[in-house]
Amino acid sequence: MLEVDTTVMTPAPVFETSGHVARFADWMVKDLKTGEVLRADHLVGNVLEARLAGDKEARGLAAQPAKEDDKKKKKKDKAKAAPVKLSDEQVVEYETILAQLDNYSGPELGALCKKHNITNPDTGNEVSEPQQFNLMFASSIGPTGQHPGFLRPETAQGHFLNFSRLLEFNNGRVPFASAQIGRSFRNEISPRAGLLRVREFTMAEIEHFVDPEDKRHERFADVRAVALDLLDRDTQAAGSTRVTRMTIGDAVDKGVVANETLGYFLARIHQFLLKIGIDPARLRFRQHMANEMAHYATDCWDAEIQNSYGWTECVGCADRAAYDLSVHSAKTGHPLVVRQALKEPIVTEKLVAEFNKRTFGQTFGKDSAVIQTLVGGLDEALLAKLQGELAQGSTTVTSSDGREFKLTPDLLTIEKKTFKQSIREFTPNVIEPSFGLGRILYVLLEHSFWSREQDVERGVLSLPAVVAPTKVLIVPLSAKTEFDPLVREVCKCILARYLAGSPAPSFVPHGACSSYLSQCSLRAPSFPATKLRKAGVFSRVDDSNTSIGKRYARNDELGTPYGLTLDFACTSLSYSRLRHLLAAASSCLRRSHVPAVQNRTMTLRERDTTGQLIGSIDEVIDTVIELVNGSIDWAGACRRLPAYDGVQAVE
Amino acid sequence: MLEVDTTVMTPAPVFETSGHVARFADWMVKDLKTGEVLRADHLVGNVLEARLAGDKEARGLAAQPAKEDDKKKKKKDKAKAAPVKLSDEQVVEYETILAQLDNYSGPELGALCKKHNITNPDTGNEVSEPQQFNLMFASSIGPTGQHPGFLRPETAQGHFLNFSRLLEFNNGRVPFASAQIGRSFRNEISPRAGLLRVREFTMAEIEHFVDPEDKRHERFADVRAVALDLLDRDTQAAGSTRVTRMTIGDAVDKGVVANETLGYFLARIHQFLLKIGIDPARLRFRQHMANEMAHYATDCWDAEIQNSYGWTECVGCADRAAYDLSVHSAKTGHPLVVRQALKEPIVTEKLVAEFNKRTFGQTFGKDSAVIQTLVGGLDEALLAKLQGELAQGSTTVTSSDGREFKLTPDLLTIEKKTFKQSIREFTPNVIEPSFGLGRILYVLLEHSFWSREQDVERGVLSLPAVVAPTKVLIVPLSAKTEFDPLVREVCKCILARYLAGSPAPSFVPHGACSSYLSQCSLRAPSFPATKLRKAGVFSRVDDSNTSIGKRYARNDELGTPYGLTLDFACTSLSYSRLRHLLAAASSCLRRSHVPAVQNRTMTLRERDTTGQLIGSIDEVIDTVIELVNGSIDWAGACRRLPAYDGVQAVE
Repeated sequence: MLEVDTTVMTPAPVFETSGHVARFADWMVKDLKTGEVLRADHLVGNVLEARLAGDKEARGLAAQPAKEDDKKKKKKDKAKAAPVKLSDEQVVEYETILAQLDNYSGPELGALCKKHNITNPDTGNEVSEPQQFNLMFASSIGPTGQHPGFLRPETAQGHFLNFSRLLEFNNGRVPFASAQIGRSFRNEISPRAGLLRVREFTMAEIEHFVDPEDKRHERFADVRAVALDLLDRDTQAAGSTRVTRMTIGDAVDKGVVANETLGYFLARIHQFLLKIGIDPARLRFRQHMANEMAHYATDCWDAEIQNSYGWTECVGCADRAAYDLSVHSAKTGHPLVVRQALKEPIVTEKLVAEFNKRTFGQTFGKDSAVIQTLVGGLDEALLAKLQGELAQGSTTVTSSDGREFKLTPDLLTIEKKTFKQSIREFTPNVIEPSFGLGRILYVLLEHSFWSREQDVERGVLSLPAVVAPTKVLIVPLSAKTEFDPLVREVCKCILARYLAGSPAPSFVPHGACSSYLSQCSLRAPSFPATKLRKAGVFSRVDDSNTSIGKRYARNDELGTPYGLTLDFACTSLSYSRLRHLLAAASSCLRRSHVPAVQNRTMTLRERDTTGQLIGSIDEVIDTVIELVNGSIDWAGACRRLPAYDGVQAVE
Repeated sequence: MLEVDTTVMTPAPVFETSGHVARFADWMVKDLKTGEVLRADHLVGNVLEARLAGDKEARGLAAQPAKEDDKKKKKKDKAKAAPVKLSDEQVVEYETILAQLDNYSGPELGALCKKHNITNPDTGNEVSEPQQFNLMFASSIGPTGQHPGFLRPETAQGHFLNFSRLLEFNNGRVPFASAQIGRSFRNEISPRAGLLRVREFTMAEIEHFVDPEDKRHERFADVRAVALDLLDRDTQAAGSTRVTRMTIGDAVDKGVVANETLGYFLARIHQFLLKIGIDPARLRFRQHMANEMAHYATDCWDAEIQNSYGWTECVGCADRAAYDLSVHSAKTGHPLVVRQALKEPIVTEKLVAEFNKRTFGQTFGKDSAVIQTLVGGLDEALLAKLQGELAQGSTTVTSSDGREFKLTPDLLTIEKKTFKQSIREFTPNVIEPSFGLGRILYVLLEHSFWSREQDVERGVLSLPAVVAPTKVLIVPLSAKTEFDPLVREVCKCILARYLAGSPAPSFVPHGACSSYLSQCSLRAPSFPATKLRKAGVFSRVDDSNTSIGKRYARNDELGTPYGLTLDFACTSLSYSRLRHLLAAASSCLRRSHVPAVQNRTMTLRERDTTGQLIGSIDEVIDTVIELVNGSIDWAGACRRLPAYDGVQAVE
């Protein structure tokens, strides 16, 4: 894939051409009294869902109307309805509407509001007829104010505008893809729900350019066996949201998914989402319905992920066909095509009219060009007819303004000619996987967050190491908090020297120790943070004042998968024993060589199980690097290192 | 550093508060006849530079008015003047103006245009008085059109708005820094010169928050000896642009650079620019002059890099002091401060008035509050005076509206009290290194581009491996282009199997070979691309039809530092010899085991020297990985592997 980085601020003609100025809009309604603006589809959906919930409650079916559930619902939508029982027909009708909600046009949504008496749930006021609201942010480019521009609502147009360069860079051949990660902007009517609906968001978009006549994918065999939960267009049109589990190979073979390339990307999207930690039971692929599809797409599947707000589209995968390249090419007159040398030239025969320039000009004067264009534009059948008539003496053609011209064999001849085509020219189709990174992050946080039975107040964020922002927490010291500051400083200092494995220049006075420590941590080759950094593993040192347990808990909540403890085993030592060690250490420091108070061991803790292992510093660090890189798992680490039971041998 | 990613679209109040709405503007002039808009400082600069150049030519001093130079100049600025000799005074005056160009206000630029008869060089027309033009793009947020917004012109405000969270994440302590890489937008009057002046650009900004009373930097010792070319404010004010070479340690000691933290970042900027390949001889650090400084800065140094357009600011390093946090805090009422526990509480004594509420209320009624506020607002000296007068019986205070109130000891007492302060509260200062990534990239391309004496038509882009987009080119085959396609396919196929080190399932038919090859390249663990990818080294395979020489030359121009050739030594083989080898290989393929036609060697080529080495595949790949990671240099590689003289042993 060729990475591109194109502009956000885009001259208006680009989006006029792409169709976004005319059609990239949502339907909104206004509260007729307060003027509040609501998205029409959200309004209908929220009100009907609330009524169905109310009906369930009235029927005594509401599973457990627990307090917590209620609270959540209130946050989620304000359209909470009183528990009113609906007729069975109404229930079916509402459910059918909800299953097709994305398929309604604006006027249809308006009709639904009227028919089902849907009002603004906050005020009870009637709402206006739905109106279109364009979602692009507008601005003006340059000092004159004469050049309107829009902020891109998707990164895709930037890829298409650069198509010629991308194609050249790929030596003129398809398939190839461009990829871009960047900001897009949509002036949402009602942004809400954290990162799920925002006006500015980061997208990752791939535009994969393929031969329209060959949408196979070279590596489809690699993913053929990947099974997905599919919710196709027909199922939704029938009012159902039941998914079908199917391998992508079967889905393509049966025509549920249109082609191999689209299927390949659906499978890769599935694999990606699972790898970063999305719960497979809450992931489905839903096909767009006809009306719902963006104006440029011919087929589209969304990876939808379930979360506390319902099923949310997080990745779209559309077949945009040749739409974008065609419209830009037509607008600019610049061909956006692939020219492919044919192995076997295509030989065709067709009738061609040849004009006798001299006699033609003499006969028709300034009408010559009109007639020549007229004849040149005739199809094979009409030319054959003309040819026949000419052979019999003469024929007539009629111009668009109704004038008739008589043609004779001295003026033109019509004959079969052979054409040899050695180049095939075509506009590539585009398959577009488009990732909403903020949405993915949001649902990932929901799927990863839980709390331990014995400590429900504190959360654990079970992010896989591959996406955890900090991979390893380093807890350099288990000094009890009640130790006086001097002891802590000296303790740190010993630790630093001990890890550095090299003598310090002289005794480090109280107060300067922490800066000394930080220098050591940056320089000493065997200090864990340095070694981890060299291996590309991001770690963080927590040398705060709190207990190890609290530091671990804090970092469980931040999603840090592994913890390393450089344990002085202080916890199992009495205060007086520690004073003794420190005195010895201090005198060592004065004598400028490394104190031998400890064997160089370290413990390794896993976040989700809270299991701990122990080993030499080097062993433990090598193990954690492999864990983070995914070359071993925790079970593998447990086979390699002995479990730590909280007691560490002290010299 | 804590990485942040904040919004581009920003509600207007943020930039009203930060001062950008009022002051983030350039001075522009209009051509009085055509209405063309020009940046006032650029106009003055271009016209005067052109006159000086014309003067030099008239004096016969123009070094070599070669054709190429002329062409460049024409591209660069259209203000080319006729060769007119100026008076010596004029030359001095023009040069002084140019040295201070960034220091003039709009009216001053207008006066210069009048005084020196500066007109639009394209038309010769007079220009208008300079007017301010705000550089921020404006838009409107939400469907109502009532919420104006601006696209950020810098990423910095996003850091400041998130200051409280960042501080919390850093456990309430300074120093710490936030960092952001992202787009910023400036509605430039005249964008030009490639990436040097654009309306949308990628910035990398660090906001380093420090204690205003302690701007030392923990790691300053690491950079103390780094020597920079400095051009300070005073030198420029004196009309000179001569740099002084100085270590950053000396510069801070002598007060040329204000403090250690600012100095630390200047040195790190210098090291960064050199590391990515900027020519140190064309790098200087220029201090901003008073008028030139952004409204928020108290001191600022620019890393300026020389290129064909002159000296261009590529990195700014400003001390923004407490400006931004203070204005946002004042506007929102939310304190943006650090609270630091004092080791020794500060004990102070001061005079305090205590009011006898009962008698005070009885005496003054509703004026009580006014008088209490009045007395409470007095400073120590005035309180002491009051205290003295009260001791003598009575005193008077005058309210702001001129009324006098008599105070007696029964109404209030003024006494010394002891205050103990255990928390110090302060607004941190901000040191801001701000990198314009597009500008840096542009000058880097200029500094890296050259051509070999023997091949001036073709360029070489000597990007260091650390920034080269592709680190390693893999040339899998040296088949002569005249070989028929079948031979090339089989050749590829042998190669793939040979590298995979494992038997293919069966003979691979013509046409399927390249897809087979690509599968091998993705799977076979010993295939170079796979091994390099695992080591994080990005490589690209060039299996195009052209000669090795051309493929190398093409990739020299793309800046790829290393090339690997999997050499069948075909170039030194006769066609018949190759046929023989291929026949043998084909029969091996049929027998499903690996052909032993070659020893597994590979050549390694360095871009700038075009030197080549040879070794076993594993040796060569390990070497190139170390070269790319910077753990050895080319000289080291030459000590490790024998030179390749173009002849490879064939079994």
